Amino acid sequence: MDRALPSLYFLWLKLLEVEDGFILQTRCLDAGEQSIEFQQPPGGASTIIPMLLCVLTVSDRCSQGLMTDTAGPAVADLLRQHWPGSRVANALVPDKEDEIIARLLEWSSMHASLILTVGGTGLSPRDRTPEATVRILDRLVPGIAEAMRAIGSAKNQFAWLSRGIAGLRGSTLIVNLPGSKRGAEESLSAVIPLLNHAIEVAGGGQNHPS
Amino acid sequence: MDRALPSLYFLWLKLLEVEDGFILQTRCLDAGEQSIEFQQPPGGASTIIPMLLCVLTVSDRCSQGLMTDTAGPAVADLLRQHWPGSRVANALVPDKEDEIIARLLEWSSMHASLILTVGGTGLSPRDRTPEATVRILDRLVPGIAEAMRAIGSAKNQFAWLSRGIAGLRGSTLIVNLPGSKRGAEESLSAVIPLLNHAIEVAGGGQNHPS
Amino acid sequence: MDRALPSLYFLWLKLLEVEDGFILQTRCLDAGEQSIEFQQPPGGASTIIPMLLCVLTVSDRCSQGLMTDTAGPAVADLLRQHWPGSRVANALVPDKEDEIIARLLEWSSMHASLILTVGGTGLSPRDRTPEATVRILDRLVPGIAEAMRAIGSAKNQFAWLSRGIAGLRGSTLIVNLPGSKRGAEESLSAVIPLLNHAIEVAGGGQNHPS
Repeated sequence: MDRALPSLYFLWLKLLEVEDGFILQTRCLDAGEQSIEFQQPPGGASTIIPMLLCVLTVSDRCSQGLMTDTAGPAVADLLRQHWPGSRVANALVPDKEDEIIARLLEWSSMHASLILTVGGTGLSPRDRTPEATVRILDRLVPGIAEAMRAIGSAKNQFAWLSRGIAGLRGSTLIVNLPGSKRGAEESLSAVIPLLNHAIEVAGGGQNHPS
Repeated sequence: MDRALPSLYFLWLKLLEVEDGFILQTRCLDAGEQSIEFQQPPGGASTIIPMLLCVLTVSDRCSQGLMTDTAGPAVADLLRQHWPGSRVANALVPDKEDEIIARLLEWSSMHASLILTVGGTGLSPRDRTPEATVRILDRLVPGIAEAMRAIGSAKNQFAWLSRGIAGLRGSTLIVNLPGSKRGAEESLSAVIPLLNHAIEVAGGGQNHPS
Repeated sequence: MDRALPSLYFLWLKLLEVEDGFILQTRCLDAGEQSIEFQQPPGGASTIIPMLLCVLTVSDRCSQGLMTDTAGPAVADLLRQHWPGSRVANALVPDKEDEIIARLLEWSSMHASLILTVGGTGLSPRDRTPEATVRILDRLVPGIAEAMRAIGSAKNQFAWLSRGIAGLRGSTLIVNLPGSKRGAEESLSAVIPLLNHAIEVAGGGQNHPS
């Protein structure tokens, strides 16, 4: 019982074959339902391919039409404001792991620079966004989630209860935000400078000194 | 070697059959030794079933009778003070993963709202409470442990060394506290408002905005 | 899809046979290339075996001779200053998981008290030091990495982006530091008192109250 942790990553390596099958299957299921909307950069013609930034609202009630999603659009507005030349895609899914995963895989395969999920990070029985996210990450970036909670708790102590995680799939940075409009905006604003730097480094554009 | 993390949760899903066998076995071993004491709510007759709150002291020396457990009773007193109408159960086990797990499974199967472990979170060779706990959690709540360390370190920098974790099994919130009386009391006091909110949300009684 | 986390550690236990084979193989590959330099304690003859402290610089460019490693020697100097009677070993490897792991296994099998890695904790595509480290840890000590980020961010907000982890393999404490000289020195200085205490407790020399 004394040697517990060693095999974690070793094991993952052994499972790639199975996992790849799973990913392919998930993506096929999703293929018929994609409806990404791109916002053209305001500055007109550019020779550089603009960054793709994505917002995925995760909410049973919003996806059933019982509630209007205000947090997702607010997050998308913040992205357009901080990265004015970028394309911003958005989508809405219920609190179902398979649907969350399908969208994360789709956008990361399109080499999105950043995917922000909004919602499903709480302790309600249906909240499973972090569990879906961790399944498709290559590398964790624990400090982004720690920063959102530590900085957020100065204004609202319940920020500590967000179970959100952050990490990379390839060069795509994926970050879980809480589902309330205020919580999502505050969490994102707390880490905007970090995300800017992280995206640049993850894309291979700079060697960050850590 | 480049795709490391994806299969983590996928893998767990595949192992449920084996795991369920393990859990059943563990619980059978424990069935003969349960001795939970319930404290009746002071307010007299109530039509609402009172919450079950549990304290598990994990200590080789206390369980051998070489030391008296003062931290566990102090934690139980704090629980009675903050949730006056609740039932408080307590138990004492040595630093053995199987015995810790058996008790956590028993109490969560009884739909306890909260289980606090006390002890076994340090770096001594025998300290394995977090390793036992993670084996039976469904969902992690990393911010509760981060808060205990970050807030606790303002008074005592060694609070950073507690390896405690927190998370949910079903609707039961499980949190690891350090084993010293002062450390356990301070860690718990730092997060009492969070736990109150977390219990309510995890039980399905409220939709926390994150 | 609802029971995700339980099998984690249970699974690791099942894989020890495979893992042990892997570890043995890795260590054999490494056996021919060891070149540890020991620094004799300045105080002359001592009847106590001095602690072994190790610094592993992880850098493609330094290992190719394209850059001089300044962070590793700076970290080694800090170790000699804080633990004057200890032996300090150092090595340099590229950003390859197998080479990192081989060195960590070699030093922990020599019962090193502390291994500090320097570099490979960022978000660049090649940065994989935490992924290598987690594969050979028995027990995580999450608060050491949290402390380095939280304390470090007061001076430099990008400290939040270090993906470093910390934990134990047997009684050897292993901590990932960032790769810049300033980042490594600041991160280490922030946690020196914690490391001193942690080493003592992990070695069985004291029962830390948590």
